[in-house]
Parts: sequence; structure tokens; C-alpha cells
Amino acid sequence: MNERQRARRPGGRSARVGAEVHRAVTELINERGYGNFTVGEVAARAGVADSSIYRRWGGLETLLADVALTRLNAQSPMPDTGSLDGDLRTYAANVAREITGPDGLLLVRLAVALSSNGQQGLQARDDLRDERTRQLQSMLDRARERGEHAPDALDVLDHILAPMYIRVLFGIGPLTPDYIDGLVDRLL
Amino acid sequence: MNERQRARRPGGRSARVGAEVHRAVTELINERGYGNFTVGEVAARAGVADSSIYRRWGGLETLLADVALTRLNAQSPMPDTGSLDGDLRTYAANVAREITGPDGLLLVRLAVALSSNGQQGLQARDDLRDERTRQLQSMLDRARERGEHAPDALDVLDHILAPMYIRVLFGIGPLTPDYIDGLVDRLL
Repeated sequence: MNERQRARRPGGRSARVGAEVHRAVTELINERGYGNFTVGEVAARAGVADSSIYRRWGGLETLLADVALTRLNAQSPMPDTGSLDGDLRTYAANVAREITGPDGLLLVRLAVALSSNGQQGLQARDDLRDERTRQLQSMLDRARERGEHAPDALDVLDHILAPMYIRVLFGIGPLTPDYIDGLVDRLL
Repeated sequence: MNERQRARRPGGRSARVGAEVHRAVTELINERGYGNFTVGEVAARAGVADSSIYRRWGGLETLLADVALTRLNAQSPMPDTGSLDGDLRTYAANVAREITGPDGLLLVRLAVALSSNGQQGLQARDDLRDERTRQLQSMLDRARERGEHAPDALDVLDHILAPMYIRVLFGIGPLTPDYIDGLVDRLL
């Protein structure tokens, strides 16, 4: 076991530091919003050294993206129901539930914050997007392997996710089950 | 002519104040971003009294929405080409050009800022959305009056505007003419 593996052992010090830092970030986002706190403030609240954060995440942008991704993966994991139809409907319903919840615009807010934060911000935004796209792509690949005719990941983004996000952002609601199913029907 | 009409006479003092206040808001947005300046700072920069701003706009949220709407109306007026097909393609291309420009995410940033700013913010966001929707609806109504089969305004939002906004927000680009025409084809 090398140094890095030891440091990341589940339940070890690294896991505890990770959890504390994530908690501190979530609190600061809720209290002040994106863009209104520093790595130093996260470190102080989490009870760790600034250098621990820089060493592990490189900077605030990557840390923010990591926190968002962890949360998304926990709250909206990619479904695996055995059929494309079932997967897409479950996924769309999960996303709708997530984005109409109290921190629903988390991902949009984060993307806006990262987009106006120089090259590191753009890189963190791109990495986050690519990771979620890979997960969606795996779901679509499983459908193709079963012999189903699956849409492209970008079509799912354009015609299922984008309309729901924009409706929530501009307060056009609610996202009813009929509406969500209609988006899936239209794509399939 | 009553007091209110006199005050809004084009070229009069009210128009000058309006232009100065809009200019001050645009500068402050560019320098600091939404949410990081007050009515007092706008007033100081525009060389007017705080009370002039409160009297005319009611508060910062309504002022921000007014500035955004004025800009959108100037840069992306609703086209009137004589056919639904022409109108939708021109409109989509205009929006694409606007949102891929330097302040492209203006409307998304503003919606995010207003959404986290209490009841006044939500009201300003809703008014802005309703005004742009009315303009889009007029374009679609003209098509219906010519006997064309026009989609609903919300379908245009869901399947033409939303995908373009989300692609720009997450850095998935570019919005090529083929891509934009494809969105319109799919909807029509």
C-alpha cells in the first residue's frame, strides 16, 4: 500500500477530512452563496490546514465541483431498470425531484459561478459535466448492448434535462409526471 | 398631459436619468457581478438620488430586470419575416449569437440572482419572463393568423431556447448553424 492509498483508506483520516471539508463547503454555500468565500474560510470551518485543501483539490473551483458531484451521485444515481424506457423515465423523474427541491438549482448556480472564474473554473465545470455525461453514456451504452435503439447523451441533455432546468430557473412549473413523461416520449 | 407622462417624455430629464441609471447598472454588473452592489451604489454612479431609483423602479430587482429586458429587446428583437419557419430560424440564430457573445449568460445569471433574492426577486424574474414570452407569443400568433400551424411558446422554450442555453452554460459548443436549424426542424 503506497502513501496515497493509505491516505485515502475509507474511514481513515483522509475520509474524515474529506467529509469535514465537504460539510464546511455546503454550509458556506447555503449561508453566502457561491463566490463569496475562500479556501481559507473553508479550511477554518473544517478545522484543517489550507494546505490540505490545496494538496487534495488544487483549488476552490475543483473542490466546489467535487462537492456538487458527490451530492448529485448520492441523490440522482443513474438508474439501471433493465430497459431504456424505464431508465430514462426514472432518471428524468429523479432529476425533476432534485431540481425542484430546496437546493434545486445547485448545478446551474455552480456552473454560473465556475463560468465566471477564469480558466480553473472553466476546467472544473468541464470536468463535472464530463463525469456526469460519462455516467449517462454508460446507461445509454447498456441499452445499446441489450439491442435497444438509444439516443445520444447530448439529445438527452437537449430535450429532457435542458427544458426541466430552464423551466425551474425561470419559475415555469410544476414539472408534472405527465410533462416529464412527455419529454421522454418525444425523445424516444 | 399628466405628471407621469411629462416625466417620461422622450429626451426629457426622465429619459436621461433612465439612461444614466442603466449605464451604471451595466457597469456594476460587469465589474462585480449580480448581487454585489446596492441601489445606493447605482445612484451614486449615475449621479441621481436613491429615492429617484426607488420611485421609478421600486427596488434593485425590478431595475436589474428592466436593464436586462431593454438590452434583450435591443439585441434580440422578435423577427417578422413573413413565415413561421423564417421567424423561428432568425430568432434562434439571434439568440445563439447573443448567448455566445461576451455577456451571453446575462439572462441565466440574472435569473439565478433574482431566484435567490426573496419575493421581490422572484416577481422581477417572473415579469421579465412573462414580457419575453408575450413577445414570442405575438410572433407565433402572427403565424396562426396567416394560417400556419405554430407550436406553443413553451415548446419553443423547451426545445429551441433551453438546449442552447444549457449548452452554453456547460460549455458544450459551438452552436453551429446546422445544430440550430436542427432544433427548429425537430420542433416544426
